[in-house]
Amino acid sequence: MADTKETVVEGVEALTLNGKPDAEPVETGTDAQAQEGATAPTEDVVDPWNVASSNDAGVDYDKLIKRFGSSKIDEELIARFEKITGKPAHHFIRRGMFFSHRDLHTILTLREQGKPFYLYTGRGPSSGSLHVGHLVPFIMTKWLQETFDVPLVIQLTDDEKTLWKDLKVEDAIKLGRENAKDIVAIGFDVNKTFIFNNLEFVGKCPAMYQNIIRIQKCVTFNQVKGIFGFGDSDIIGKIGFPAAQAAPAISSTFPFIFGNRKVHCLIPCAIDQDPYFRMTRDVAPRLGFPKCALIHSTFFPALQGAKTKMSASDQNSAVYLTDTPKQIKNKINKYAFSGGRVTVEEHRKLGGVPEVDVSYQLLKFFLEDDAKLEEVRVAYSKGEMLTGEIKKLAVETLTPIVEQHQAARKLITDEVLDKYFELRPLKFGS
Amino acid sequence: MADTKETVVEGVEALTLNGKPDAEPVETGTDAQAQEGATAPTEDVVDPWNVASSNDAGVDYDKLIKRFGSSKIDEELIARFEKITGKPAHHFIRRGMFFSHRDLHTILTLREQGKPFYLYTGRGPSSGSLHVGHLVPFIMTKWLQETFDVPLVIQLTDDEKTLWKDLKVEDAIKLGRENAKDIVAIGFDVNKTFIFNNLEFVGKCPAMYQNIIRIQKCVTFNQVKGIFGFGDSDIIGKIGFPAAQAAPAISSTFPFIFGNRKVHCLIPCAIDQDPYFRMTRDVAPRLGFPKCALIHSTFFPALQGAKTKMSASDQNSAVYLTDTPKQIKNKINKYAFSGGRVTVEEHRKLGGVPEVDVSYQLLKFFLEDDAKLEEVRVAYSKGEMLTGEIKKLAVETLTPIVEQHQAARKLITDEVLDKYFELRPLKFGS
Repeated sequence: MADTKETVVEGVEALTLNGKPDAEPVETGTDAQAQEGATAPTEDVVDPWNVASSNDAGVDYDKLIKRFGSSKIDEELIARFEKITGKPAHHFIRRGMFFSHRDLHTILTLREQGKPFYLYTGRGPSSGSLHVGHLVPFIMTKWLQETFDVPLVIQLTDDEKTLWKDLKVEDAIKLGRENAKDIVAIGFDVNKTFIFNNLEFVGKCPAMYQNIIRIQKCVTFNQVKGIFGFGDSDIIGKIGFPAAQAAPAISSTFPFIFGNRKVHCLIPCAIDQDPYFRMTRDVAPRLGFPKCALIHSTFFPALQGAKTKMSASDQNSAVYLTDTPKQIKNKINKYAFSGGRVTVEEHRKLGGVPEVDVSYQLLKFFLEDDAKLEEVRVAYSKGEMLTGEIKKLAVETLTPIVEQHQAARKLITDEVLDKYFELRPLKFGS
Repeated sequence: MADTKETVVEGVEALTLNGKPDAEPVETGTDAQAQEGATAPTEDVVDPWNVASSNDAGVDYDKLIKRFGSSKIDEELIARFEKITGKPAHHFIRRGMFFSHRDLHTILTLREQGKPFYLYTGRGPSSGSLHVGHLVPFIMTKWLQETFDVPLVIQLTDDEKTLWKDLKVEDAIKLGRENAKDIVAIGFDVNKTFIFNNLEFVGKCPAMYQNIIRIQKCVTFNQVKGIFGFGDSDIIGKIGFPAAQAAPAISSTFPFIFGNRKVHCLIPCAIDQDPYFRMTRDVAPRLGFPKCALIHSTFFPALQGAKTKMSASDQNSAVYLTDTPKQIKNKINKYAFSGGRVTVEEHRKLGGVPEVDVSYQLLKFFLEDDAKLEEVRVAYSKGEMLTGEIKKLAVETLTPIVEQHQAARKLITDEVLDKYFELRPLKFGS
């Protein structure tokens, strides 16, 4: 999956209050105002390689739903979801971080009918360290796997990263393996989870290459030009790659899991990956398979603000899963874009703007307690809570998550990891 | 390899003297004259999917050498070849059927220095039955393998045929296997020969997919557009495919044969395959590997004349390896384009034209006795030998070759075949 792209867009560079590395935050921030005058693109850019918005609150997701032709995850769908699963929806869904879908109703109906489906998600290993934003699709996926008790396949697109980056085959494979340790540390059930990296898996499973060829037979250059914006000077590897990301959405790619069964697939992913699966949904019926269903997440904001997403290749934009508590504190204090006012007086009077405040966004993702989050939102909006205070809460919320992750990752030996990569049947249901 | 394309070119259709299925040949033919008035393309068309010439004698190979930028296999090279191998060159080389090369001198120098190289050739399995023309590259390859005592890899591009034809993955695999039985029947040493079909091999050998990706990273759409004439409405599978034909020319594609060694490669193939290897030669040094060397054959003429090549998909253009003696006789008598004159009288007076006579061309390929062939050429040119007589000789020459092939093929069980497909080390030298 092309989920960690290094996009630097004019006008969305960090606007920090001061340059000291260990700076404590000032009580109120001026980021929001300072940024108003900056040049910025006028329309949101969202594709698998670029995410950029001119709006401090980030991409206009309602517009995106229209543009992409997906559907909103609305109250009615959430109600049906909760009814069928018999439990409250995950806070990512309730809070609108997973906000869009394709055919989620079909998946719920399959569940009602007791019919099987599987989950598919992935990651493009462009760096050795993940950041906290990378956890989001995997946390969602894990929750869905536990809720529905279904098999899961996770693709590492090391082939994609070799093709797009200045990265050798061997190095992309190594990065993928490092990333896989982070993924496994999130706690996926080994009996129901298969992880694979294309640069090795294609060479172990003839069905994968055969499905890549079948898909590549259904898609013209004109189509990938339209969908992905490829041009004549692009390498042929890029032009062919979408088929490699599409193939795992067709259950026959995994004969060792699904045998001959044509099993439906649900894909949790960030919305920038949707173009791959629009293409896949076009092709699947022509190969005699059901269209994959999707649930789409918003982007995880860069510390500098929601105009662009957190990127593992931009050190200052991201809180890494390898960061120390001190680094986390420093980064959030120094870089997290603030929705606060210029002076304490003004902040107390006018209140902060949580919609553009990155610390608040971090809390939305990682502070599970709904009541507490609402309390923060109200206090910050009213100016009762200052920027320094909300940053402190963000640090206190993120730090134990990162620490716990680091502890869990230490336990992932090569032996543990290899089990996830083994081609084998997966358990359906308990 | 895309070596069996179904091209029907205006003006090169069969011009038979009569329509009776079991017709005996008339003593002289009028084909040459009758064809003069027909519409025909004005320039030779030669690419992996089309071969057509407006000239009765076929493609102008000297022009092709210039256009492709390859080198002629001249007397000097043949002399060096014979000196180094210590035996006369194969009649395919002596008679100019293998007429062009790239870096053959490098291969000879390697041999002089006692350094290793390997052979690589292939076939695109678009039909179950091969025709006699398909034997040519494999006979040459076998002779080279025996002469140099080197390992050989044979690629069946069933992926290519799936992409280019109305052919399913499963059916392309089956055709490839049938074709492989014919190839094995030619008599390749199992200890030195590895046969593989892409649709299964890519899924068994991670190094193959990794090299495909490495190659696809070095080639742009603009380049394959220039080399192969691909356009925007072509499927992305076609656009990416050249890398799959290029990969076996890089020795690291076969770690089970070559380990870590960077071994030179010599490719015997029909000249229409050269575009693939021009591309490969461009890429290989960028991946740290030597450029492949090539020897190019002319095309095997269709029975209807050298304006196009024999095609397995055009029943009347080809003598199949499955044909009965009666079918061979009937086809040659009925369809083999004649360089003879309209009447016996005229033929006796003016003589025939062996250069355009398909029966003579068949003899050039399959009548090993140089003296006898020269005798035929002289007699036919002088009008001493009539069309019926040269056709009879062609039938007598081809029939035992086909019969022997059929007998050899009967012995190729699935068990025998499987050994060639097994991933294993090959013997270098005796």
